[in-house]
Amino acid sequence: MEHPVFLQIETDFKQHIECLREAVRIPSVSANSATAREMAAWLCRKIQALGADCSLVETGGNPVVYGHLNANAKRTVLFYCLYDVQPANDEGWLAPAFSAEIIDYDDMGPCVIGRGTFNSKGCITGFINTLEAFKRCGEDIPVNVIFMIEGEEELGSPNLPAFIDAHKAELQKADCVFWPYFSEDRAGLTTIKLGSKGMLYIELSCTGGEWGGPAKKDIHPKHSGWVDSPTMELVRAMATLSDGKGGIMIDNALDMLLIPSNESNAMLDSIAGTFNRELMRRELGIKRFAYEQLTDTQLLASHILAPTINIDGMICGYSGNGCQTIMPRTAKAKLDVRLVPNMTPKHFVECLRAHLDRRNFRHIQVDVLSAYPPSQSDPGNPYIAALLNSMHAHAPGKLELWPIDPGCGPEYLFTDRLGIPIAFGGLGHGGNPHSINEYVQISSLIRNEKCNAEFLLKLAQT
Amino acid sequence: MEHPVFLQIETDFKQHIECLREAVRIPSVSANSATAREMAAWLCRKIQALGADCSLVETGGNPVVYGHLNANAKRTVLFYCLYDVQPANDEGWLAPAFSAEIIDYDDMGPCVIGRGTFNSKGCITGFINTLEAFKRCGEDIPVNVIFMIEGEEELGSPNLPAFIDAHKAELQKADCVFWPYFSEDRAGLTTIKLGSKGMLYIELSCTGGEWGGPAKKDIHPKHSGWVDSPTMELVRAMATLSDGKGGIMIDNALDMLLIPSNESNAMLDSIAGTFNRELMRRELGIKRFAYEQLTDTQLLASHILAPTINIDGMICGYSGNGCQTIMPRTAKAKLDVRLVPNMTPKHFVECLRAHLDRRNFRHIQVDVLSAYPPSQSDPGNPYIAALLNSMHAHAPGKLELWPIDPGCGPEYLFTDRLGIPIAFGGLGHGGNPHSINEYVQISSLIRNEKCNAEFLLKLAQT
Repeated sequence: MEHPVFLQIETDFKQHIECLREAVRIPSVSANSATAREMAAWLCRKIQALGADCSLVETGGNPVVYGHLNANAKRTVLFYCLYDVQPANDEGWLAPAFSAEIIDYDDMGPCVIGRGTFNSKGCITGFINTLEAFKRCGEDIPVNVIFMIEGEEELGSPNLPAFIDAHKAELQKADCVFWPYFSEDRAGLTTIKLGSKGMLYIELSCTGGEWGGPAKKDIHPKHSGWVDSPTMELVRAMATLSDGKGGIMIDNALDMLLIPSNESNAMLDSIAGTFNRELMRRELGIKRFAYEQLTDTQLLASHILAPTINIDGMICGYSGNGCQTIMPRTAKAKLDVRLVPNMTPKHFVECLRAHLDRRNFRHIQVDVLSAYPPSQSDPGNPYIAALLNSMHAHAPGKLELWPIDPGCGPEYLFTDRLGIPIAFGGLGHGGNPHSINEYVQISSLIRNEKCNAEFLLKLAQT
Repeated sequence: MEHPVFLQIETDFKQHIECLREAVRIPSVSANSATAREMAAWLCRKIQALGADCSLVETGGNPVVYGHLNANAKRTVLFYCLYDVQPANDEGWLAPAFSAEIIDYDDMGPCVIGRGTFNSKGCITGFINTLEAFKRCGEDIPVNVIFMIEGEEELGSPNLPAFIDAHKAELQKADCVFWPYFSEDRAGLTTIKLGSKGMLYIELSCTGGEWGGPAKKDIHPKHSGWVDSPTMELVRAMATLSDGKGGIMIDNALDMLLIPSNESNAMLDSIAGTFNRELMRRELGIKRFAYEQLTDTQLLASHILAPTINIDGMICGYSGNGCQTIMPRTAKAKLDVRLVPNMTPKHFVECLRAHLDRRNFRHIQVDVLSAYPPSQSDPGNPYIAALLNSMHAHAPGKLELWPIDPGCGPEYLFTDRLGIPIAFGGLGHGGNPHSINEYVQISSLIRNEKCNAEFLLKLAQT
């Protein structure tokens, strides 16, 4: 007989959506500490309402929502997620970014539109709703839960390592970490990422000084015939870092790359089997991939397995309309580098420094704003298998394993620092993270909660 | 016996400084049409007070202050200058940029500090003060004056050509154009520039589209492994344009360059004779020139005779503090190119387009925001000689001729369109145009006015 929690989820589903909308309406942009704190307090109250101990733990930045739900169970899961969101100042939203309106969006039926719907408030409220459903149907929550929900993931989790170190003994009571995600695409294909790329966020800057260029102030560009331009130096240096297609051209930086394993190659072949180039172009809003001439498997390998470099922004000189002539004293660029297994932030930065020095760009300064290594999980681990099987049980279509997520996440904190396996994933569909019209598809959220429930029940039996 | 105007200038000098300060306190930034218009009206009243007809002529942008002072004289001078100024938002001003405070500045004694003091309100009020001094001492103004003071020079004079075409017959009644300038350096050396470089202000932009890249919206940079980056494309394209030292590396763009004439080379040798490398480094706030290894003559040739390219600003992606990851859909850069004789904006842009196309940067868009050709004047012309001799008569030190000004100006409008010689220059010292702490040295302004008076008297005798 089916466990009563599944019927309860269906019964309560309408309130569950309202719970998500309430969360999205708190504009908890990472840099806005007041609303981030409001969001943390809101979550804390929700978790306490489940019967858990929960409090906000100060970190120096946005607090961690830290809670313990003792279900007197054999197994304990550490629930990790993020309550902070990216800014949403860009134009083009169908509804205000923090209004959480329900809109029929892009042939997917009713969706909640708003910053944080997909990344990652929908996952948090989905999990809380699932636990509440266990209680409301009169059943025990099947596992003990430790909640650790941070508010600085979008800033690169600067304070999470210290938090984890400070609470290591408690956290290590967990058998596994659950990091939830809406793993379905819009066509119903569900993907599971066995790890994440590592992140290196760097700022390159060039300021006039002993090497040349304007050292005191911006100057009139009529002097560009005899004064070095920091901006041009930065541009010339940056042009040596990449092939223009995300590929890294930094001397020796890729020496540590591993040859893809047979398992990875088999996964890529399988992914290619369901890959729809046209659909992916449409989702990304692109007319062509950087490498249309490649086979699907090769194209996917470039996306999934390759380390990448991207310019997130540049800050130099005049940025208004029309003409202003100036030779700026300082030029800056922000770049994100995504590291794959066996690469380390430290080695990469050393290679970058040497690469720049070798090309007479000693005056280009490299500042590391965020850094963490990549991580990979073993699908044979029983806790990870419990999630995979739960997803399989409720997924609307095929399940697909990816050797690693092209996105970045601080999984290394759990796998390396705590030595606990991570189950990453879940059902449900959403999209446009970090972009306009971020959304979750409402009809998919019921699968999200049912998969959560199944996973907790399976964990209890592991 | 000395003409009484010179004593009158000394008598009235304190009020003359107040007149300049009053002008500087009107923050007539080109883009601010309200204050620009206020400035134009202020000037109009000043010119009318001299007994001239004067009115504001609409141009579609900021109006031209257009006046006629009929002195029943044989000769007529066309006074050209600009009443608009650059923005002054940068930090580091010793006093608010539009407060026109008098400060003992950098060992030069009392200076008026403020945006527009040097570029170019000091020159305008200096000329008006000179004319007023003629009247106040009971003498005739020695020449007829046509005033044409525009308010969009810092935007590249977009509406001035049409104005000149519309008033061509009237303007051609002038025997010469006088474009005033504070030509003294801080050490008392006075330089005269026989022409100006031409200006090409371009915007390069790259947006995702048929060629690749995000075509609809900014996307998550985890896709940089298979999606082209418009920003990286722009950076790579820009890196091919310059040697990093202002030098242009665009295919064929320099084919039209002339070998410097013997006269130019002789002027460079003469300039090198008084050139003080250390003083110039200090004025520019630089630690070293781009080519310290060159001789003074070679270094000056690079500054004065070479065409240059400079990045004025870049606009792409995230420009705040800390980390935000984004692959921007669009990246833009603003560049100014300074053209030397025989180069034309049209040919340069054609070369740039072909250069980019040849390197597979067809998707980099080139927009011309401002363009005018270079110009050169003949020091043997009697009207130009009148200015040179007047400067010689009142200069505090040596006079030096430059074959061309490394700065740009729309002199071609007079030399090419009207066919009238330009006398460009004058005495007085100021500095930091387009930078913080723009200033004029008060003690030098008396020489400016005396030189103006001398020039007008000499013109009358030509």
